[in-house]
Amino acid sequence: MTKKIVLTGDRTSGPLHLGHYVGSLANRLKLQDDYQQFIMLADMQALTDHASEPDRIVKSILEVALDYLAVGIDPKKSTIFIQSLIPALSELTMYYLNLITWNRLKHNPTVKAEIVQKGFGENVPAGFMIYPISQAADITAFKANIVPVGDDQLPMIEQTVEIVRKFNRTYNTSVLIEPEAMIPAIARLPGIDGQAKMSKTLNNAIYLSDPADIVAKKVKGMYTDPNHLRVEDPGKVEGNPVFTYLDVFYPDKKKLQELKEHYQRGGLGDSIVKKELLEALQAFLDPVRKKREELKKDLKEVMKILKEGSDKANAFAENTLKEVKQAMHLDIMHRLF
Amino acid sequence: MTKKIVLTGDRTSGPLHLGHYVGSLANRLKLQDDYQQFIMLADMQALTDHASEPDRIVKSILEVALDYLAVGIDPKKSTIFIQSLIPALSELTMYYLNLITWNRLKHNPTVKAEIVQKGFGENVPAGFMIYPISQAADITAFKANIVPVGDDQLPMIEQTVEIVRKFNRTYNTSVLIEPEAMIPAIARLPGIDGQAKMSKTLNNAIYLSDPADIVAKKVKGMYTDPNHLRVEDPGKVEGNPVFTYLDVFYPDKKKLQELKEHYQRGGLGDSIVKKELLEALQAFLDPVRKKREELKKDLKEVMKILKEGSDKANAFAENTLKEVKQAMHLDIMHRLF
Repeated sequence: MTKKIVLTGDRTSGPLHLGHYVGSLANRLKLQDDYQQFIMLADMQALTDHASEPDRIVKSILEVALDYLAVGIDPKKSTIFIQSLIPALSELTMYYLNLITWNRLKHNPTVKAEIVQKGFGENVPAGFMIYPISQAADITAFKANIVPVGDDQLPMIEQTVEIVRKFNRTYNTSVLIEPEAMIPAIARLPGIDGQAKMSKTLNNAIYLSDPADIVAKKVKGMYTDPNHLRVEDPGKVEGNPVFTYLDVFYPDKKKLQELKEHYQRGGLGDSIVKKELLEALQAFLDPVRKKREELKKDLKEVMKILKEGSDKANAFAENTLKEVKQAMHLDIMHRLF
Repeated sequence: MTKKIVLTGDRTSGPLHLGHYVGSLANRLKLQDDYQQFIMLADMQALTDHASEPDRIVKSILEVALDYLAVGIDPKKSTIFIQSLIPALSELTMYYLNLITWNRLKHNPTVKAEIVQKGFGENVPAGFMIYPISQAADITAFKANIVPVGDDQLPMIEQTVEIVRKFNRTYNTSVLIEPEAMIPAIARLPGIDGQAKMSKTLNNAIYLSDPADIVAKKVKGMYTDPNHLRVEDPGKVEGNPVFTYLDVFYPDKKKLQELKEHYQRGGLGDSIVKKELLEALQAFLDPVRKKREELKKDLKEVMKILKEGSDKANAFAENTLKEVKQAMHLDIMHRLF
């Protein structure tokens, strides 16, 4: 039986952090054995809201690729590719844009929320407004059955399904595949400042590539229970990011339970809990950092992986584009010549 | 000295009519000697408001190409090409979309007028709303210095100039060329019903491919001066489409002046004037029709012209895309590999 196809990826606007690991990379490590997984380094999508910073976008391509490989994404199992090297994605976007009304784009809930979050006001780049269509091109180009997303991204998958149905109905075909959203169990890690989301913009992230001393400093400065002023005071575990992180990274679940109870009844200082967390984090990050350093010594090999992945992805997407143009009777060379 | 570059073309949504000849084809015949002229069969642009009729669009590619060649566009001088065979145009569109705000697109006067004219209401396809950006991609891909347009299309050239400036400024380059609009002397031929514009939608056109008997029927039914009821009545020449057409197609300017004066003082019947017009039109259309019939007997040759033109245009546009990506530091293969 052929494996189902997964499309996933990241905008290349900076290095990846623990939030990415928990929310998506860990899931990809699981998926790569049972699915045909395409992982997209979304440089073109990153440009939709960073048009004036292409150097940052290009530099991040390599950083994110190193993050992937360092955590264990296996290029023999997963196809890692660069979006801007796949021209078919732009062409598909152009054809899909004719199937969706301007009005519909305006009311995409994810885009609306992001416009507020990014503070665009009236100055939203047109490229940003249409990125749901571009994403539909990405998903359908690879005939993805499954797209792992956070729950805030569900409207994007709905938009893709809508385009698939409209396309297949309009051109009387079944060439495009309806994707399904897959929402990972743990979707989100809070920031070290206690905010709901770890993010570069909020400056509250621990990066997979952070050196050990930086991680130590960040953990030491972490937000905890603000009412846990003296060691002997009872502390809160819920909403305390130190314990949320421990839930994910602490290997000894029994000991973690004891730590929580001790913290709740009082007598356990933040510094002790943070020390436990730091140890657990370093135990996780040490091999990732080590692998990353190794990879950086042989960047040629990393580049070869990206080149081969992009070539493979390009051939796949070109084939879909060919089928799409056939379905539209736009296979002009064949029809006219 | 290298020749300046002209980009021009037509949406392939149907055959061309006398209005196209007067408004643009005649101008192209003059330009092709002194300029490097690219003529685009704009099938992708035609799809922006005819997404559900690709067969009509594809069929029209050949019809319009036959019209071009029949009136005397010389493929040795002008490069005739098919838009959907040039992937770089889609890629350039994607990059330019990030440089223009959604708000700016909304307020494009040409697009606003066309939305009303086409009766889109709230259901404007997103592809139609962004077509000024796609047009900027067409113009800049061929580094056009000159773009012949009707005066209603001036905002499209302004939009392109805006994108060129924004791109060159943002990426500190001079790779994109600012185009200039060229407004032909006679921009518009009225319809046979007297409406300001000859158009397929208004069903008031005489096509370059109309057989002789159809042209005769259309001329016979032409709108004239509605107050010129009896032969002996004085008639109006201004706003009388029969005389507007005579101005363009009647070879004997002296005799035309006499006809006008006779018509104005009364005693000259519409049927006589229409007979003069019909003779002049057939004298113009006969060789065009003849050439068209010849070309249709050897469609392989026409297809070869389109293939060679598209190959040449593709190489040109790919080179521009390469320069654009270099300017953006997005020449990833070169930078990373």
